[in-house]
Amino acid sequence: MGTVAFDAIETPFGKTDKILGGAATFIALAAAQFEVEAGVVSVVGDDFPDTYLDLLVKKNIDVSGIEIIKGGKTFFWSGKYHNDLNSRDTLTTELNVLADFKPVVPDHFTDSDVVMLGNLHPNIQKEVIEQMEKRPKLIVMDTMNYWMEHTWDELMDVIGKIDVLTINDEEARQLTKEYSLVRAAAEIIKMGPKYVVIKKGEHGALLFHEDHIFFAPALPLEEVFDPTGAGDTFAGGFVGYLAETKNVSFNNLRNAVIHGANLASFCVEEFGTKRIENLNKNEVDKRLYQFKELTQFDIELQ
Amino acid sequence: MGTVAFDAIETPFGKTDKILGGAATFIALAAAQFEVEAGVVSVVGDDFPDTYLDLLVKKNIDVSGIEIIKGGKTFFWSGKYHNDLNSRDTLTTELNVLADFKPVVPDHFTDSDVVMLGNLHPNIQKEVIEQMEKRPKLIVMDTMNYWMEHTWDELMDVIGKIDVLTINDEEARQLTKEYSLVRAAAEIIKMGPKYVVIKKGEHGALLFHEDHIFFAPALPLEEVFDPTGAGDTFAGGFVGYLAETKNVSFNNLRNAVIHGANLASFCVEEFGTKRIENLNKNEVDKRLYQFKELTQFDIELQ
Repeated sequence: MGTVAFDAIETPFGKTDKILGGAATFIALAAAQFEVEAGVVSVVGDDFPDTYLDLLVKKNIDVSGIEIIKGGKTFFWSGKYHNDLNSRDTLTTELNVLADFKPVVPDHFTDSDVVMLGNLHPNIQKEVIEQMEKRPKLIVMDTMNYWMEHTWDELMDVIGKIDVLTINDEEARQLTKEYSLVRAAAEIIKMGPKYVVIKKGEHGALLFHEDHIFFAPALPLEEVFDPTGAGDTFAGGFVGYLAETKNVSFNNLRNAVIHGANLASFCVEEFGTKRIENLNKNEVDKRLYQFKELTQFDIELQ
Repeated sequence: MGTVAFDAIETPFGKTDKILGGAATFIALAAAQFEVEAGVVSVVGDDFPDTYLDLLVKKNIDVSGIEIIKGGKTFFWSGKYHNDLNSRDTLTTELNVLADFKPVVPDHFTDSDVVMLGNLHPNIQKEVIEQMEKRPKLIVMDTMNYWMEHTWDELMDVIGKIDVLTINDEEARQLTKEYSLVRAAAEIIKMGPKYVVIKKGEHGALLFHEDHIFFAPALPLEEVFDPTGAGDTFAGGFVGYLAETKNVSFNNLRNAVIHGANLASFCVEEFGTKRIENLNKNEVDKRLYQFKELTQFDIELQ
């Protein structure tokens, strides 16, 4: 569940008109890289082109949970990245149909093993959980600073109901008032989740569980073209792998973080969803091998 | 070879009077964690306390290459870290005896397998190389932005004579005019070194060689107390491990980067050299195990 949207993006390398965007779009496209039945719960206006829906359907993504509001306009975001691509200014946010979004989980989604709640109002995230017929094996949730500032109580309520929180480093610090990410993760775990993934953009991602920490680097790239959607692609790879392998042990979550980082490394190579729309298994596996080369060492320990 | 100095440090957690510091001090203390014959080439004034020299000697560090200038004063640096510990202001730099430093490599050092050139004027670094009786198996060199700005030609000359350049991310960008660290490393390799280590502080370190990249994360810590000397401790662990294992293959350099990152993770836990003065093998091995836990995963690839 998350946004399906139009994005207009400007980077030092160029700019786009309105293109396909939204957290749920990136999450679903990444998750669909795995052998899973992926479905999206979202809302768009009737200005949303059939070609975009077809694109998702062709990737075996179930779009029956995407409500189309007659006479409504699709959520629109536009932003401009600074030269280092590490920060951006939001130029436009038009909520449109998202302003009154009441998520409806289709009946055939309500027994899903894995639920990914993209960044949205915590009450919307909670409504999805409440519509599940049985407790999913894993509920993963993303959020951002806005909800900490405006809907603290609602945010705490939903954080108490999930298994994994994904959050970026600055937001983890804001949520916990702890500068150290180790301490921030410990505080978040006290709020409810068993696992915390702290996303550090080009500096990789940390997975925390009890006293354990696992780290997935971002693959060093010659060029980052457009970071839009990288965090959601990471999350989509993470949940897609877990849904495919039906194993939510900490050890398997470690692998899932690597798969997420792997797909995110493709996402940033072109504008929007372009690169992850056109990925083949060979490319994905080859880059997984690079992740192994990047991180594995053979120091023997007694 | 490098500075042996007095440091006075202020962090958000406290401040020190003049304490033992200097690149060569941290490098030697870290290298001496391994089964090696470590020796220092440097210069101090006769204000430098015997207790500091004794401390190094007790760690089996050969100090016969540390020249003591009668009536001279030891190099002094003082700095104050900002709240996030990622940046600092230099308050004082008194070169003192370093202003006229002519390194003299003791005869019994001139057949060393591994030479580590701490950050100093490139001509001083070159003089050390020229005094070696035979080409060391590995020459590693550190530098900083000041030499890029003031002694470009001399810097290029010495970079052409070494095997490994260690440099931080911002300096790698400044040296090459490339923002991408992958491209920056490729440019540095064109300048001469076979290997480049780009240090990213709390974000770890990257080792580059031909088309290969290896990454060592910084161990996520509950608290960083004082980052002074972490980069030099990293370098000392890197060269110490390589000297002990007498193996300068890329695969062994990967292990060396992990050992460097491991020792650096201790360095930041107390002021100055305090923590690495008092390290035992058990603690070091235990933390190496944490590095394995942090980075190793078991995705099978065909």
